Amino acid sequence: MKISFKELTDSLAEILVQEGLGENSGRTAAIFAKSSLDGYHSHGVNRFAEFVKNIRKGVIHPDKQPIKTDTLGPIERWNGQKGPGPLNASICMDRAISLAKEHTLGCVALSNSNHWMRGGSYGWQAAEAGCMAICFTNTMPNMPPWGGKSPTTGNNPLIIAIPRAAGNVVLDMSLSQFSYGKMYQTRLAGKELPFAGGYDEEGNLTKDPGAIIESRRILQTGYWKGSGLSLMIDMLATLLTAGKSTSEIGLLNAESELSQVFLCIDPLRLNGKEQHEAWCDQIITHFQSADRVDPDQGIQYPGEATHQRRKRHLEDGIPINDEIWSGILAL
Amino acid sequence: MKISFKELTDSLAEILVQEGLGENSGRTAAIFAKSSLDGYHSHGVNRFAEFVKNIRKGVIHPDKQPIKTDTLGPIERWNGQKGPGPLNASICMDRAISLAKEHTLGCVALSNSNHWMRGGSYGWQAAEAGCMAICFTNTMPNMPPWGGKSPTTGNNPLIIAIPRAAGNVVLDMSLSQFSYGKMYQTRLAGKELPFAGGYDEEGNLTKDPGAIIESRRILQTGYWKGSGLSLMIDMLATLLTAGKSTSEIGLLNAESELSQVFLCIDPLRLNGKEQHEAWCDQIITHFQSADRVDPDQGIQYPGEATHQRRKRHLEDGIPINDEIWSGILAL
Repeated sequence: MKISFKELTDSLAEILVQEGLGENSGRTAAIFAKSSLDGYHSHGVNRFAEFVKNIRKGVIHPDKQPIKTDTLGPIERWNGQKGPGPLNASICMDRAISLAKEHTLGCVALSNSNHWMRGGSYGWQAAEAGCMAICFTNTMPNMPPWGGKSPTTGNNPLIIAIPRAAGNVVLDMSLSQFSYGKMYQTRLAGKELPFAGGYDEEGNLTKDPGAIIESRRILQTGYWKGSGLSLMIDMLATLLTAGKSTSEIGLLNAESELSQVFLCIDPLRLNGKEQHEAWCDQIITHFQSADRVDPDQGIQYPGEATHQRRKRHLEDGIPINDEIWSGILAL
Repeated sequence: MKISFKELTDSLAEILVQEGLGENSGRTAAIFAKSSLDGYHSHGVNRFAEFVKNIRKGVIHPDKQPIKTDTLGPIERWNGQKGPGPLNASICMDRAISLAKEHTLGCVALSNSNHWMRGGSYGWQAAEAGCMAICFTNTMPNMPPWGGKSPTTGNNPLIIAIPRAAGNVVLDMSLSQFSYGKMYQTRLAGKELPFAGGYDEEGNLTKDPGAIIESRRILQTGYWKGSGLSLMIDMLATLLTAGKSTSEIGLLNAESELSQVFLCIDPLRLNGKEQHEAWCDQIITHFQSADRVDPDQGIQYPGEATHQRRKRHLEDGIPINDEIWSGILAL
């Protein structure tokens, strides 16, 4: 089936009202709907039923919002009070945007929150408000460190966003080479991953998603590099927020009490609008000017495919899996 | 041959006095010597002759130092005046450390500098001063973007450092999977890279360093992820410093006028010493607790091998290639 962005947001919001999100229902629903609008169903509607179940289980406290606990120079610390992850993250990114607009740079460090779903949401939020952003979160232990077989680090997503009139540039990368979502999807389609994505039970690198899902040995982005970067992000997130580390999150019954950081910079205060756009366009134009591997395949900047999907789905409606939709309506 | 850290520093400093670095000769020499002490010869003594030649060619202005040009909230902009890259970077990291100690977080954005050699130097500098740091630089175009065959982005190193009493944690990663240095070294040894490091002339991924050196198609860290991250780092570096982008650096006769960012955070102002050390140790201990792939091979945190090499070289002297050393003495 296909559904419009507005209809999808309204339907999800109606459910969230029932679940106790009150006046924050629309805002939270829109974050899920927008991820599906942008083509990220795995962190959009496909994850919505689990989100509602986590409210009912008491993992997510639907009536809570983040509160400021400390100010340390340009850094503010907020406590997410185990409220809804996307709502908490969105409130904290808004605060970081305000700080940046006032002081050029602002940073909000959020402890005790829940899964923010798609990290890119908050990069797009900043870019659409005219701000540059760097944000990251830790996760439960779900990825082995380099040289290890069992998961003692997280795939800790890193998001970097730059606003640009001709198309915002938003990188949203986790530190495993492929997500479990991508591996389940590829296995279901009976296909192989395009590159090795982990190890089989015998310890051989493999493109077979089923073998990796069984071994739980997903590959880090860039081998030892992604392993090291995931450790650093967990350390930065923990130390900045004074919240839980990946190791401590692993001791909980659910992936909760996450530590997230939202750093924002106002490019207008740095360079003014005209100069900002000129630099961005010049860098993107040069990046895309490389000789192409496939003459028919353009070189895309981070976020470019998202712009294209968003436009298509706004015009044609958002395609949603019927079974997923029935599951949501039956909640 | 083997040489002590002090003797190495003094020998290099003597040459730099001749080259016009004046009172900054010792400090600059120590940065080169320390890279070799830590086992990074490729950006230590092995690069020293080229550094001196770049002074003589006028690419590096030996008598220049960075000057502050602007203050924008917690960000200071400095102009490197094409001075010696390692000296400029070290002065700017010192300034970022001071800002962090005063305001919790400080950022120095340096334009118009020269190659900083080993990026890790400035992460270690921060950590040894008790500060957390994130720093990055852009470079000349030396890496293809994802989907491209010719280099229109840089391998733009990213450094993240966390001080820790039991051993500073310092990640120093560039965004190509392997450096050209590693590929030359591997080719010279007649060996293969441990993983694919780029493409051959026919466009196949290969572990053969010679084939990659010929095609110039080095592989990004994590394929499309390293490609996207390199673009974001170039954009951040250019916009924060108001300096040159990778694309503009590519138009120069030499790799010069680079844009570099030094962000520092004082962990004592965040959490106090005791709590900081407890969190760091807990995270590192958990990271290293994974079941090992090779029971005899420990899981190392970023920087751990550097500590080991530094200790060994302080005790036994720094091994230096005779030919490289003769070349330096003949400068």
